[in-house]
Amino acid sequence: MSNTLSFTRNPQLNHQGELQHLLSIEGLPREIIERILDTAAPFTLVAEREVKKVPLLRGKSVFNLFFENSTRTRTTFEIAAKRLSADVINLNINTSSAAKGETLLDTVDNLAAMQADMFVVRHAASGAPYLIAQHLAASGRKHIHVVNAGDGRHAHPTQGLLDMYTIRHYKKDFSQLTVAIVGDILHSRVARSQIHGLTTLGVPEVRVIAPRTLLPTGVERMGVRVFTDMQEGLRGADVVMMLRLQNERMQGALLPSSQEYFKSYGLTPEKLALAKPDAIVMHPGPMNRGVEIDSSVADGSQAVILPQVSFGIAVRMAVMAMLGGGSQ
Amino acid sequence: MSNTLSFTRNPQLNHQGELQHLLSIEGLPREIIERILDTAAPFTLVAEREVKKVPLLRGKSVFNLFFENSTRTRTTFEIAAKRLSADVINLNINTSSAAKGETLLDTVDNLAAMQADMFVVRHAASGAPYLIAQHLAASGRKHIHVVNAGDGRHAHPTQGLLDMYTIRHYKKDFSQLTVAIVGDILHSRVARSQIHGLTTLGVPEVRVIAPRTLLPTGVERMGVRVFTDMQEGLRGADVVMMLRLQNERMQGALLPSSQEYFKSYGLTPEKLALAKPDAIVMHPGPMNRGVEIDSSVADGSQAVILPQVSFGIAVRMAVMAMLGGGSQ
Amino acid sequence: MSNTLSFTRNPQLNHQGELQHLLSIEGLPREIIERILDTAAPFTLVAEREVKKVPLLRGKSVFNLFFENSTRTRTTFEIAAKRLSADVINLNINTSSAAKGETLLDTVDNLAAMQADMFVVRHAASGAPYLIAQHLAASGRKHIHVVNAGDGRHAHPTQGLLDMYTIRHYKKDFSQLTVAIVGDILHSRVARSQIHGLTTLGVPEVRVIAPRTLLPTGVERMGVRVFTDMQEGLRGADVVMMLRLQNERMQGALLPSSQEYFKSYGLTPEKLALAKPDAIVMHPGPMNRGVEIDSSVADGSQAVILPQVSFGIAVRMAVMAMLGGGSQ
Repeated sequence: MSNTLSFTRNPQLNHQGELQHLLSIEGLPREIIERILDTAAPFTLVAEREVKKVPLLRGKSVFNLFFENSTRTRTTFEIAAKRLSADVINLNINTSSAAKGETLLDTVDNLAAMQADMFVVRHAASGAPYLIAQHLAASGRKHIHVVNAGDGRHAHPTQGLLDMYTIRHYKKDFSQLTVAIVGDILHSRVARSQIHGLTTLGVPEVRVIAPRTLLPTGVERMGVRVFTDMQEGLRGADVVMMLRLQNERMQGALLPSSQEYFKSYGLTPEKLALAKPDAIVMHPGPMNRGVEIDSSVADGSQAVILPQVSFGIAVRMAVMAMLGGGSQ
Repeated sequence: MSNTLSFTRNPQLNHQGELQHLLSIEGLPREIIERILDTAAPFTLVAEREVKKVPLLRGKSVFNLFFENSTRTRTTFEIAAKRLSADVINLNINTSSAAKGETLLDTVDNLAAMQADMFVVRHAASGAPYLIAQHLAASGRKHIHVVNAGDGRHAHPTQGLLDMYTIRHYKKDFSQLTVAIVGDILHSRVARSQIHGLTTLGVPEVRVIAPRTLLPTGVERMGVRVFTDMQEGLRGADVVMMLRLQNERMQGALLPSSQEYFKSYGLTPEKLALAKPDAIVMHPGPMNRGVEIDSSVADGSQAVILPQVSFGIAVRMAVMAMLGGGSQ
Repeated sequence: MSNTLSFTRNPQLNHQGELQHLLSIEGLPREIIERILDTAAPFTLVAEREVKKVPLLRGKSVFNLFFENSTRTRTTFEIAAKRLSADVINLNINTSSAAKGETLLDTVDNLAAMQADMFVVRHAASGAPYLIAQHLAASGRKHIHVVNAGDGRHAHPTQGLLDMYTIRHYKKDFSQLTVAIVGDILHSRVARSQIHGLTTLGVPEVRVIAPRTLLPTGVERMGVRVFTDMQEGLRGADVVMMLRLQNERMQGALLPSSQEYFKSYGLTPEKLALAKPDAIVMHPGPMNRGVEIDSSVADGSQAVILPQVSFGIAVRMAVMAMLGGGSQ
């Protein structure tokens, strides 16, 4: 049974098959992903109300545990938690106990002893949120939930989920789609989460488009078609998911220059014209205009980049509400 | 008609002539300034109560968007918003997306997509809050309000408004006053806001007192009398508004030394004696004691520097309540 | 009378003998300490509830005024205040007005003028919280309370109080105990607070165990027995309170190396076996595993290090509730 299997692989589900932690989309059964998206839908309406708050997490303590700086992601979780009426504590651990030589798990133990209800964890090391979740389980504190807000190159599941929400919102049905993911697949935790989400939800054709130097070896085994030519890869796509190109990639040996990159892999109106006429354009932000995406596309009628942000709040509210309201 | 005129010049008022953004005192009609001061008055009482909160902005999301560090100013807005029961999100953008190369307007678009209700903006570049307000209007998000918390050398309107509140509190009537502003007029956004406020409210004599090197060229055109001799300038003043001298001015060619500056332009009891006996002394803080102001004056009976801070909370509550409760 | 005496020495009690500020355990009468511990007890239950909040400080403004970075301590106070429903404002003053040359007391005056109800103060200079409390009293603002969250080498009273709570929880009665404090007594504000607490509560034998270089001269006058041999000092102890060894001590002339230190003063199972079989092991955190404490002890059945953290939240809630609800 897939639930049991995924529970063996990761501790995201409890024995009743309910969401216990959100660590990665990998290993998450399709019905759980769909339940998250279904739960998110009404939360998009909360944001439209005069009083943008529901009392679902009132009196709960949510810790934003950021071992790596990311104001943007931290803000989305902070807003989502506050709209659920939780008390939110922001912890930037670079400047704190880590500097004093305390281990990651001692830090977690301490915060857990402050009666935390949820940890939103961002860490440069792949697997850190798993380690925390396993430690909490091993020490009998299963009532504390962990949400991965990005770990190394591994996963960024709420980003993946908001992307799935966005695609479902605009395309309704996953079963007929061709989705192209373009850019730095190699270093992107977002891409990994997207690929797992899309394949789990039944997208028949997931393509990745990138120069050889930005493709992980064996990427084909993830169930995707690989293109190094962007024109070919975009042809007939329903959804174009651009990735952010980290500035630091430019300085290394991986890429010639940002102008050169833009020429080959930047999304211009001309290239976009090769996709279906009603194709949507997505980007996780922050955008490098003129590097991976042309401004006329970023601001154009096919872009759904800002709705992604709005849906992201609703999806994070859904995940937190499902975790915070769940039994153990 | 002055409303129409000011709306053309800046987007602070909506078509009904109500406050839409607070960007600068310049261009703000007298009746709007007076309405802000009138609205602030009862908020000074909220701060005296056991429970210092009113539910006017409950469930609203206020973003403190600080592209330039200012704990003091950020704190005043954070307190004001929390006393109105808003959810407050602090964003220090130096360390965030700006570093990742995202444009100012992309950052704003993202936060707007998180269903922001209000941006409190501090920026080193003059005009940044205008740019944001115009962008929001151009992209159909007129329900989001912008408050300028200091932009470059241009304006710091809530500081100017709290100064007006303070003068009205102690002097009741603006129409007979002589007000002297002393110090670094050239680099001061506070001075600009003060001058606009005082002239709009009908102060017949506004004086600026500074060394030539710290006076903007053409300052006379703002409707002020210019003095380079402090003794002359203070004579008969009802209100003495000291400005903060930035440390960095000392190191340049503009000023000989802080001792020399104090001798000529520092407010001592002797110099203050030239003003009216019931003159009040104001300072926006933080003070450089022994540079622009003598400690015996700062702590003396004529100083109203700490009441300015208290009134500042009430004035910021008034501005936010007027914006947050208003239609678009 | 002891109340009058302590009031002369420090301003912690008002004329009715009630807690006015919490500055140090030194000078605090036994009945006040016991009242704090009694008040904390029900707050340990609040943390177990679904909604971990009580409205005791609703609408109050608590300022975390940290002139020295300490995310861990700041977090405990932030959680405690939020669970009492206060509005919490975090101020890291390194990066703020202090840099602009404003004096400590001008900063305090400003925040007081924002209608603060409580200052939680952390400062590298011993006595800073006293200075603030005295200044508030001298300027007629006795309704604002000060809590010392650690000042230089002087005191860290809430840490001392949570230690007392922990001992009382596990040992019930102080009057028969032997308590050993082990480590860097010289530089530890925690040790000072512990010694004052233990002697005030009637512990008959308080021992300090440290190398000569980490013992203050004249430590015997604080009413403790001094040991430089850890084996001797631990013999028959009911409570073993380990201190954190600051990394910077290693680099100086005070200690040979961390391995050497661990050999002589690190708490191992073998050394712990010399204490009573039911002895408890405490540590204020963050721990240096393998320096002052062996992991098998830190994670062992006698360690009460994580309960200390939980009790710490309840004790801080108790202190804040007693201060915030008290008359002046």
